Amino acid sequence: MKTIEIGKKLVELCNQGKSEQAMETLYSPDIVSVEAASMPNMPAEMKGIQAIRGKAKWWNDNHTVHSSKAEGPFPMGDRFIVKFHFDITNKQSNKRTQMDEAALYTVKNDKIVREEFFYVTE
Amino acid sequence: MKTIEIGKKLVELCNQGKSEQAMETLYSPDIVSVEAASMPNMPAEMKGIQAIRGKAKWWNDNHTVHSSKAEGPFPMGDRFIVKFHFDITNKQSNKRTQMDEAALYTVKNDKIVREEFFYVTE
Repeated sequence: MKTIEIGKKLVELCNQGKSEQAMETLYSPDIVSVEAASMPNMPAEMKGIQAIRGKAKWWNDNHTVHSSKAEGPFPMGDRFIVKFHFDITNKQSNKRTQMDEAALYTVKNDKIVREEFFYVTE
Repeated sequence: MKTIEIGKKLVELCNQGKSEQAMETLYSPDIVSVEAASMPNMPAEMKGIQAIRGKAKWWNDNHTVHSSKAEGPFPMGDRFIVKFHFDITNKQSNKRTQMDEAALYTVKNDKIVREEFFYVTE
């Protein structure tokens, strides 16, 4: 599958609320996931599909997602960028936030091997 | 200057139509510029501020920009992403196009040393 096709599939699944299906079908078992900031009890960089499943579970357990939108993909060679918009409420603080971020994905052997999430941290 | 401050300045200047001022004030003399595709008489990767000035001149000579919008910056470490929207007319073909792309910038010693433009090429 070409990089752009993997990117299109990822955007399509995310916009259908199927980000877990995207993870299970498009990600390498050796996926490396990098956040702009570390989170409570979670390092900024994590490796392996099991760890990334854990991060997704933490996200879903701790946030109510009112809406989300993925824009792209914007491809170059074996990489592509997707822009995300989220409207979420943190279940612990009950604070509702609109946030935008950009993700840079790297593809190898038809699978996503690296995802990097860019956003304002302060 | 922090990476995010350089990114904010770049977005601000681009949204004021001052992309050349951004280039002259924020870019390293050794800037490397990479496009998703090569253009007529222009390689995908170019190096040095003189070459990048030449690319900007080519762009301005060959396109009428009706509007442009920069969104971001989305920072991580020494890099940041900006999403661009352009409404342009190619002066030769007279074809008007709306295009979206994402750019990944790398900062070193308070200057942008690398810019990479991600977009659909076919």
